[in-house]
Amino acid sequence: MPVNLQPAQPEHLFPVAGVDLGIAMAGVRKAGRKDVLLVRLAPGATVAGVFTQNRFCAAPVILCKKHLASGKAPRAMVVNTGNANAGTGDDGLKRALQVCEAVAAAVGCSSGEVLPFSTGVIMEPLPADRIIAGLPAAKADLRAANWASAAEAIMTTDTVSKAASRKVQVGGRTVTVTGIAKGSGMIHPDMATMLGFVATDAAVPAGVLQELLQEVADESFNSITVDGDTSTNDSFMLVATGASGVKVDGKAAAGYAELRSAVREVSIQLAQAIIRDGEGATKFITVKVEGGRDRAECRKIGFAIAHSPLVKTAFFASDPNLGRILAAIGYAGVADLDTSRVDLYLGDVLVAAQGGRNPAYREDAGNAVMQQPEITVRVVLNRGTASATLWTCDFSFEYVKINAEYRT
Amino acid sequence: MPVNLQPAQPEHLFPVAGVDLGIAMAGVRKAGRKDVLLVRLAPGATVAGVFTQNRFCAAPVILCKKHLASGKAPRAMVVNTGNANAGTGDDGLKRALQVCEAVAAAVGCSSGEVLPFSTGVIMEPLPADRIIAGLPAAKADLRAANWASAAEAIMTTDTVSKAASRKVQVGGRTVTVTGIAKGSGMIHPDMATMLGFVATDAAVPAGVLQELLQEVADESFNSITVDGDTSTNDSFMLVATGASGVKVDGKAAAGYAELRSAVREVSIQLAQAIIRDGEGATKFITVKVEGGRDRAECRKIGFAIAHSPLVKTAFFASDPNLGRILAAIGYAGVADLDTSRVDLYLGDVLVAAQGGRNPAYREDAGNAVMQQPEITVRVVLNRGTASATLWTCDFSFEYVKINAEYRT
Repeated sequence: MPVNLQPAQPEHLFPVAGVDLGIAMAGVRKAGRKDVLLVRLAPGATVAGVFTQNRFCAAPVILCKKHLASGKAPRAMVVNTGNANAGTGDDGLKRALQVCEAVAAAVGCSSGEVLPFSTGVIMEPLPADRIIAGLPAAKADLRAANWASAAEAIMTTDTVSKAASRKVQVGGRTVTVTGIAKGSGMIHPDMATMLGFVATDAAVPAGVLQELLQEVADESFNSITVDGDTSTNDSFMLVATGASGVKVDGKAAAGYAELRSAVREVSIQLAQAIIRDGEGATKFITVKVEGGRDRAECRKIGFAIAHSPLVKTAFFASDPNLGRILAAIGYAGVADLDTSRVDLYLGDVLVAAQGGRNPAYREDAGNAVMQQPEITVRVVLNRGTASATLWTCDFSFEYVKINAEYRT
Repeated sequence: MPVNLQPAQPEHLFPVAGVDLGIAMAGVRKAGRKDVLLVRLAPGATVAGVFTQNRFCAAPVILCKKHLASGKAPRAMVVNTGNANAGTGDDGLKRALQVCEAVAAAVGCSSGEVLPFSTGVIMEPLPADRIIAGLPAAKADLRAANWASAAEAIMTTDTVSKAASRKVQVGGRTVTVTGIAKGSGMIHPDMATMLGFVATDAAVPAGVLQELLQEVADESFNSITVDGDTSTNDSFMLVATGASGVKVDGKAAAGYAELRSAVREVSIQLAQAIIRDGEGATKFITVKVEGGRDRAECRKIGFAIAHSPLVKTAFFASDPNLGRILAAIGYAGVADLDTSRVDLYLGDVLVAAQGGRNPAYREDAGNAVMQQPEITVRVVLNRGTASATLWTCDFSFEYVKINAEYRT
């Protein structure tokens, strides 16, 4: 059951001129579900992407990077669920290319202008023929107002479709930013999340767009974890169609701050949605680590807390078993950490002060915070000014059930 | 339910002359259970220890290291369960010292010759008064033949007591090695396990003993994980009483190889017992990583597999969802890993070859291995000659239940 999360609503999602989306039921893994998404981009659109750092990166990720690096402006993206096309070797690359070629024929471009994405089971052959057979239906469905349906088409173990949208004013003109994402398990993005697609109608040169994307990815998709497993298929894409007529051609340009802020808000909302719908999640947990020497050590400690099965099961039980959080801070790998300076807050409650239990702490106060569906853990290291915020969920019976039964 | 593991049997455990063990029910956390162990060492015994690398190391660990470093030969060890005395600051150190002083008075030595150990809930004040009140009963119970009872006294969430024993012949004389351990959750030892005590009646100088212990720890307690959480209280101690009259005073000495082998066997058996009784475990899993450049990268990859909740839930479900293992290999942090050279075996079945699914692999063969209670995963990196073996268990509903309800 997702934590405070509603499915994507068409009426809340602003279309982005220059981006059309079409959906098909291609029976990739199971019949009767939306499982192929075709995205057509208007000529002149720029695209930026960040991808998984997993050494076993999937065939579509390899192809995506290659096509982006070619310098050609992408004209289409194609996404299938049900099969990740990862751990499939050269045969997987061939199949991904076959899909690109079929998409190219359908939308009228070259296969190098098509970016492929896959998500689902790892190490099984991609049924390229079924995906290709679904393309005519997806093409017939292409519409700018299709974001909510697109969000549904990319779901796997997600229980709720995920989308976010913003409008910002730049010099009297309106710029739109709309995005979708999927992901629920195998979530510990390293450069990007499972699949995230954000588009804007601003005009942004590819280099500027790529830099903006990397900054935003770090604060959004790279700051979440469900289970610490970095997927083979993580991809986070940002498209700028330019259809609004608003040009944002550098960091110093008018409108850059507004655009960055809108992209950041949409991306954080999508990343948080993945956590709210984390496999088996019953709690949405924000981990803030402050007073560190640098952001890297704050993130190390934050992720140690967020990955600990002991901490996560305590949250599931609404049990303020806070010693487990101290233990995680202690083994996070910050070798010279002086624990006698560490403070720990649960919500607003000071639980541990100077590395030991706060004498004034009463378990009732901790219990009251633990009953909430949304909880903030705050660690103050008192050794510098850096900080990091990340988001995770608890670890429930349901997580085990979902992942024990995933392929059945 | 532990995997192929029987409780410690008194008749299988050889006493070690020079080591007497006494047990008490002190009501540290709950009434009516053995929760204090007193160990008296004969004069002249040498002791070596390795301890947790967790920065939040517990008060007894701090004191233990200090007493060992003083150069005095320890005369007693005292262990309580029910309370870890970790995350307790200066007050925790005071209470641990009070217990040492009481033990010193009971056995007739100085407090600096007593080594304290605690295990249980973190960040709660140690009830030193109750432990001290239990010491007379423990003292009255001191016997050399008490190893099985001692193994019971140090259990927390363990469902089965853990002990192992060997006799080896050295130059016509018999040397005994006997040990006990506890641990079931918060298991990812980093230098040592939760609590492990091994004793021998060989005579070994403290420096030699310490080196032997560190080597053996690396291959036993430092090669297991249940949940990836490194405890605040990990301690692994090796005692040599010399009572057998057999002197082993260096690596080149007669009997060193035999003694090392016996200590290693006892330690690995104890470490494996912890995994067989891992919280909620239904499967005992051996992870072998071979063909690496060095042992460190083999361990990195092995632990990435052993820590992945997705891999562990798949084992629980007996589902050969092997793509999850490839994904874990890929994100383990070996940056220059060439995945196209990686082979993966499940038992004797070649599942993935050269980084992709083995075309000859049939799911039936994987399923047959997965039904077994003991499973070996073998990863061949094909880039060197180093290897590492480690042991873990699966991730079940029961794990979540145990840890959600731990303090209730």
